[in-house]
Amino acid sequence: MRADAPDSLIAETPAIVIDEAVARRNIARFQAHLDGHGVKSRPHIKTHKLPLFARAQIEAGAKGITCQKIGEAEVMADAGLDDILITFNILGPAKLARLKALAGRIARLAVTADSAVTVDGLAATFANGPAKLHVMVECDTGAGRCGVQTPDEAVALAARIDAAPGLVFAGLMTYPAPGGAADVERFMGEALAALAERGLACPEISSGGSPDMWAAGGPGGEKSVVTEYRAGTYIYNDRSLVERGACALEDCALVVEATVVSLPTPTRAIVDAGSKALSSDLLGLTGHGTVIGHPQARIVALSEEHGTIEVPAGSLAVGQRVHIVPNHVCVVSNLFDTAFLKKSDGTIGEIPIAARGRVT
Amino acid sequence: MRADAPDSLIAETPAIVIDEAVARRNIARFQAHLDGHGVKSRPHIKTHKLPLFARAQIEAGAKGITCQKIGEAEVMADAGLDDILITFNILGPAKLARLKALAGRIARLAVTADSAVTVDGLAATFANGPAKLHVMVECDTGAGRCGVQTPDEAVALAARIDAAPGLVFAGLMTYPAPGGAADVERFMGEALAALAERGLACPEISSGGSPDMWAAGGPGGEKSVVTEYRAGTYIYNDRSLVERGACALEDCALVVEATVVSLPTPTRAIVDAGSKALSSDLLGLTGHGTVIGHPQARIVALSEEHGTIEVPAGSLAVGQRVHIVPNHVCVVSNLFDTAFLKKSDGTIGEIPIAARGRVT
Repeated sequence: MRADAPDSLIAETPAIVIDEAVARRNIARFQAHLDGHGVKSRPHIKTHKLPLFARAQIEAGAKGITCQKIGEAEVMADAGLDDILITFNILGPAKLARLKALAGRIARLAVTADSAVTVDGLAATFANGPAKLHVMVECDTGAGRCGVQTPDEAVALAARIDAAPGLVFAGLMTYPAPGGAADVERFMGEALAALAERGLACPEISSGGSPDMWAAGGPGGEKSVVTEYRAGTYIYNDRSLVERGACALEDCALVVEATVVSLPTPTRAIVDAGSKALSSDLLGLTGHGTVIGHPQARIVALSEEHGTIEVPAGSLAVGQRVHIVPNHVCVVSNLFDTAFLKKSDGTIGEIPIAARGRVT
Repeated sequence: MRADAPDSLIAETPAIVIDEAVARRNIARFQAHLDGHGVKSRPHIKTHKLPLFARAQIEAGAKGITCQKIGEAEVMADAGLDDILITFNILGPAKLARLKALAGRIARLAVTADSAVTVDGLAATFANGPAKLHVMVECDTGAGRCGVQTPDEAVALAARIDAAPGLVFAGLMTYPAPGGAADVERFMGEALAALAERGLACPEISSGGSPDMWAAGGPGGEKSVVTEYRAGTYIYNDRSLVERGACALEDCALVVEATVVSLPTPTRAIVDAGSKALSSDLLGLTGHGTVIGHPQARIVALSEEHGTIEVPAGSLAVGQRVHIVPNHVCVVSNLFDTAFLKKSDGTIGEIPIAARGRVT
């Protein structure tokens, strides 16, 4: 498979290639899991950033979507998605103005907050309507990122939201540490009891994360306190989820197609996919991706535009195409303006990654 | 400096802010260094991706520019840059057609090659004119990426280029390993002698890299064999170059402006700049950037949209803006559609990063 005998329908590399059938199978499989556990699905669109797949997730049964940035939510609202949770503290006059405009044009907009400063900014912005903003309290159940540190703090913030005329207290939200399901149950159980004591109803307990997605809903048979789950990566899967046993390599719907541009030694192949195509994310792994069909190949180094692959002599040729499953697929979607979508009938079409690069 | 008392002219974060005066000072200083050593400058535009600064580098005395992708070169050609070296093996019919079109509209286009497959593709594309393509032989002088492995291989490939009617042998090129200047001298010295023996003139020996830029031209007083130098990062500088002693923190022209969005504990601040703003590149460093004005702050973790900073209690507040010098500035330029340019008079303007995301 040399440059003069192309083995791909894609003219130039590096490129993202998405197998639509695999992505839809992943959506259906996880939706069925959540349905079986009576847990609502609110997938995170940061992985795909595509209205096409956000709609597919809703059609499969998701109650709404999750975004991380107002800019992502604006793109999704433009595409007709009308129930959106932005899992971020929104601060500052410019962002608050955009949030208010967005709330006015979809059925339901929710955000998270973990401080009085954030809640007060939201309260002032939505005080005079017309739309209400749903606000969840973010809780740190062990991941050590955002979130109130104790159930008591969660209750105090819920009361502050509840007291604001333009805001609706929408429940508790957490992004747990890997393997932290038991901590979620304990924190949220205590917070629920304290909210009840205060007379505050808690409409939803939202947790998330693809690494532990198959435990969502109560892995041990006992019913979980979690009522809503936000998974992102599951739609494509990636090398990190394969290595963690959350999926098989065949379940990976997105690959980076690259070309071998140099073979300086018989065992060193250089491809045109570096950190600007695969990202430098390691997620605790060794190496930078899995080369499909070349189990002995090791992507040992990335610079910006080059990937260095150790291979058995004779296994790759200059000009040959390879397909790489990245370590962390979400960040890869953010590096390309377009993706190639492979349909079930074998045809391929190029589509814009509409919510890429929405940094604010 | 709370959200209600903004300390910035920039409405929303995260954002790239470039101090134009510092960037121009960096350009002038390194150009003067190369001028003093009689070495030509061919700066790599991958760091800034901005026609504005490519032109500034030429005006300061650079003989041309370096790009890594045809797409970057096309953007620069559109902006009037007319002497461009693409330091990459160009392969495949689609890319070769774009290369030929590009060669037809600028004064001088050059590429690199390290294999007969690459040279033969270029030769076939340019066989019938009208423009000639300049081709340098890439040599691996120790970095272990692309490049022929021996001076003899370099000579054989130079002869192959020289024999192709549409190609011009334009010299030898290397991207050295850090601290590898002595290896460059030895490899290139041997290759020059072998080329001369074969009767092949070598118009240029091109080396590069910002980490060792101040050694360019011959650090020990003896004259270097290198005639042209390709530096990229020097225009902005970054934390990696500060840590390596190549510049001072005040020489860093680009910062990421971020907002503290959460303070879950008195010593843990979360900012809205994660790996999608700062990238995950470590370049051998610990931590993910330097927070200006907060010498005790440590950016200990990044997720996609959050940066976790350990700080002394009381040093940051929710809503406060911070400025972060990234570990590796080149990849940061690739993550934003626009940048804010701070002029000497204190005004700020937003400009598109024209060559961002040119993956092919």
